[in-house]
Amino acid sequence: MEVTSLNFQEVLAELNEAIENATFLSIDGEFTGLNSGPDAGAFDTPAQYYAKLRSGSMDFLLVQFGLSVFTFNTETQKYSQRSYNIYIFPRPLNRSATDCRFMCQTSCMSFLASQGFDFNKLFKFGIPYLTANEEERLVKRLEEKQKMREETVGGELLHISDVDRPQIEEICRKIDEFITSEEEELVIDKCNAFIRRLIYQEAKLRWPNKLRIESKLENFACSLVIQRSGTKEEEEQKDVEKREKERTEIQQAVGLSMLMRKISDSGKLIVGHNMLLDLCHIVHQFFGHLPESYLEFKSLVHSLFPRLLDTKIICHSQQFKENVPSSNLSVLLETVSKSPFKITEVESVEGRSYSTLADKCHEAGYDAYITGICFIALSNYLGSLQNPEVPIVLSDSPLLNPFLNRLLIARLKDIPYINLVGEDPNPNRDHIFHMTFPKEWKFNDINQLFSPFGGIQVSWLNDTSAYIGLHRRDQVNAVMKALGKTNTYKIQKYADYQASLGMAVHSGDRKRKLSSSEAVSTKKGENSVPTNGVKSTKDDDGWEVATGKRRRKRKDHIDVDAAQKTKPALFPQADSWE
Amino acid sequence: MEVTSLNFQEVLAELNEAIENATFLSIDGEFTGLNSGPDAGAFDTPAQYYAKLRSGSMDFLLVQFGLSVFTFNTETQKYSQRSYNIYIFPRPLNRSATDCRFMCQTSCMSFLASQGFDFNKLFKFGIPYLTANEEERLVKRLEEKQKMREETVGGELLHISDVDRPQIEEICRKIDEFITSEEEELVIDKCNAFIRRLIYQEAKLRWPNKLRIESKLENFACSLVIQRSGTKEEEEQKDVEKREKERTEIQQAVGLSMLMRKISDSGKLIVGHNMLLDLCHIVHQFFGHLPESYLEFKSLVHSLFPRLLDTKIICHSQQFKENVPSSNLSVLLETVSKSPFKITEVESVEGRSYSTLADKCHEAGYDAYITGICFIALSNYLGSLQNPEVPIVLSDSPLLNPFLNRLLIARLKDIPYINLVGEDPNPNRDHIFHMTFPKEWKFNDINQLFSPFGGIQVSWLNDTSAYIGLHRRDQVNAVMKALGKTNTYKIQKYADYQASLGMAVHSGDRKRKLSSSEAVSTKKGENSVPTNGVKSTKDDDGWEVATGKRRRKRKDHIDVDAAQKTKPALFPQADSWE
Repeated sequence: MEVTSLNFQEVLAELNEAIENATFLSIDGEFTGLNSGPDAGAFDTPAQYYAKLRSGSMDFLLVQFGLSVFTFNTETQKYSQRSYNIYIFPRPLNRSATDCRFMCQTSCMSFLASQGFDFNKLFKFGIPYLTANEEERLVKRLEEKQKMREETVGGELLHISDVDRPQIEEICRKIDEFITSEEEELVIDKCNAFIRRLIYQEAKLRWPNKLRIESKLENFACSLVIQRSGTKEEEEQKDVEKREKERTEIQQAVGLSMLMRKISDSGKLIVGHNMLLDLCHIVHQFFGHLPESYLEFKSLVHSLFPRLLDTKIICHSQQFKENVPSSNLSVLLETVSKSPFKITEVESVEGRSYSTLADKCHEAGYDAYITGICFIALSNYLGSLQNPEVPIVLSDSPLLNPFLNRLLIARLKDIPYINLVGEDPNPNRDHIFHMTFPKEWKFNDINQLFSPFGGIQVSWLNDTSAYIGLHRRDQVNAVMKALGKTNTYKIQKYADYQASLGMAVHSGDRKRKLSSSEAVSTKKGENSVPTNGVKSTKDDDGWEVATGKRRRKRKDHIDVDAAQKTKPALFPQADSWE
Repeated sequence: MEVTSLNFQEVLAELNEAIENATFLSIDGEFTGLNSGPDAGAFDTPAQYYAKLRSGSMDFLLVQFGLSVFTFNTETQKYSQRSYNIYIFPRPLNRSATDCRFMCQTSCMSFLASQGFDFNKLFKFGIPYLTANEEERLVKRLEEKQKMREETVGGELLHISDVDRPQIEEICRKIDEFITSEEEELVIDKCNAFIRRLIYQEAKLRWPNKLRIESKLENFACSLVIQRSGTKEEEEQKDVEKREKERTEIQQAVGLSMLMRKISDSGKLIVGHNMLLDLCHIVHQFFGHLPESYLEFKSLVHSLFPRLLDTKIICHSQQFKENVPSSNLSVLLETVSKSPFKITEVESVEGRSYSTLADKCHEAGYDAYITGICFIALSNYLGSLQNPEVPIVLSDSPLLNPFLNRLLIARLKDIPYINLVGEDPNPNRDHIFHMTFPKEWKFNDINQLFSPFGGIQVSWLNDTSAYIGLHRRDQVNAVMKALGKTNTYKIQKYADYQASLGMAVHSGDRKRKLSSSEAVSTKKGENSVPTNGVKSTKDDDGWEVATGKRRRKRKDHIDVDAAQKTKPALFPQADSWE
């Protein structure tokens, strides 16, 4: 179902109940761009990876959010499914709202448009949102406005300068005329804010309780509309209506954040496919700026979404390696639609669902739906491996525990995921060097240098530095002996390089280590989310160990440029279909 | 006429001739945003204004360019008109092209969408462009690629590491098989750049002149396609075709820049309505980054577009003040459609024109057209003031000279325009102060302070500083005496403040003063445009002197926020309709 500002309030009411009854939710997002800063290096630490993501990706917008609600009926032993494709755009609802600036990546916009994304709908009918902090500011401003309306004379009077005096007197003369006339209202055009405040003040002084004055914005100019007051009761009633209207406006401005808070509060299992970037944007747009500290980030995400499952994590695990040749979402759907996989029957809810045949890849609602379908098949397969077999594995099954709260990192060579509830994987990187070299050097210059020591992998950091991975780990000392000391280039062991950055290699958190149950607070007080205790679960290695072989898939694309040493012109790739 | 990548090459051919024969051109642009940096203060210098525009507006994109070509037929004494509404988007045409990141302003996107701007068309079929510098880089890269193809064995051989060796040998074995087979071609999947280079090398060594090898990108992976060579003539012919194809691709990538160079080279009169921002974006996107120096900017714009006319400059002049109550484009069209104005008859060119009744405001092509119509009416009116009367004033009439090469600055209180060919207006600012104060201060705090000295105008620079304009110029010394020395705030005379910035008040060019005929070169060598000598023409004051009265119109809108001391939430406003 398509959701825009035109039908959002109804959908929100419906979703409140649907989420409450859900077995699990699956999500997906589409963005205006992927990255604008330096690319992650294959041997960055997770904390360094996060820092690059935070500084290079958060200026883009999440513009479409897909939510699929799956509910298992124990009687019929079937799922029902409702899917929502939600357009998100921070249109300023009035002129005191923030007029946000955001970034776009040309290739992504072009790609989304080619996939049928409707940007006209987005910019016209996208649903706005506010973080809790922004909402608080708006409410406070409204209260000030209401207070100003109520202010009775007696406070400090504003001074009317000689320059403003004639205009004020002219307006007061018109008001005098209006009061004795039979006109319904008097409109004073083009009044700036200060003149308006002076008129409010003079009206209260000269005609107490006689007038009702309102500001009206039209065509970028503000007018004052002046009417005679009604009875006391009428005036009070009008005040109540006005406050109600203002409250509704704020509710509309909070918009999609209401749904996100609902999802967070539900505590339901949330399934995504390659969901790290989606989660970062969701936190950033709807809850508050991403914290600078990596550990605080992990705690924050876990406190907001205590049960997360990334289907890519299941796909890459040892049990699935053989039967899942590719975790690309469309290939995966094909894979799990055949034996040995089994998809529990899923019933559509009228007007709220997709079919797997819809072929709407890269529409967030559809991708969320497909992700949910794949999750059902993958978890059932886990059940089929048990003895005795478990035919239907639901979202609360302990069979899922090894996969929970782990978010795939595609870019790091030997750290496959972020563990939100404990230490991240900690691979041995003794065979990795950090190297700086002259700007002119290309892949072959480095390759030549290392050729006596077996093959290498080069992961460029910028024009003059890279990580070098040795294929033959026994050559580390030989390399340091032969290449360690020159003036042209500089080679350092990985651990020494990381230490020189003043960071602990794996936490990357320079300031302090958060104990796992410590409450988090985000930067600048932008957000303060109540935090659950974070339990550390032990890493039970179900992982394909990165071999000396390069990973293919997409990598080639980057290598082209790496070998030519130009900034890779990345094509859209970080969405669920990768 | 709508112009996208689907019909651009035909339109370009047509426009080459149309521009050549044109009497004048009118232009307009639509952008993804207006400003992201600090707003200009009402008493900034033009150089400071330019610096803010350069740093705060150039990350947005010009996404629609309107061009209207007016040609006067001396026989029929009528104009003919062709108008083009051109979608612009820097889609990367291939993966070695730059994948540009750009900024959007939410209110602008929302506003354009509400006016019917088709963003889907933009992102799918927008016409790309390259600056001269980018084109040069692309051509150079292509030449390197061609050279690599031609390279005969004899240069330095690439080393094949033990790790790569098995893959290379396997591929060579397949090639051997292929050569003796009857297959048409052999495809080697998923080869990274380095492996490809090694295969090129080995093929030349092992099977010289026997093979034709091409790289092919598909689904983010690169394959090698290997075929048997044809005869020498066939191979040469294929090479010629390939080079021709590559040349065409570059031509497509240069895209809209070809048209812009054509317009620049034509030397025709270019008419715009509030055209400063349009020109900045045009220079920035199609010619090269805007120079840091304000004087170099003026020289550069003048060298690219030697005859510019901003219709707002005519509207605001003394001769027109009485008959042009508003220079808002839609009001202006209404104004000039009646006596005393007279629009020379304009004939439409089939399928290439708008009518004044089209009501397509904010479509760049339409706005350009309306601007041209207004220009015709305004210049004819100049003729009607002559004795004897001149019925039709054409674009080369000396009557237009006082208005040429002056670009409206809407934001500065007493400097109405930039003069591209001489000194900018240099008003007396002795009655202006620069003031810093505590963050908590609002308009009324400052107003109270100055109340003994008559009215003031406050132009906020940020939370803690503002320009203060005294209405009573005779009070300057009294203010300095009474308020000059405190700890809470600091008041400085305008000239002292500007001097403290280390800038000449009116040039703002810290580094050097360019003599008017000096050649310019822009920053970073991004661009080197041949520069004409710039003649300084004397300012012949036809100008409404800014009075103590505040300008209304839109100003109100800003004052609201200024008085409340919040960052103004600007609504779209810098386009021609203001």
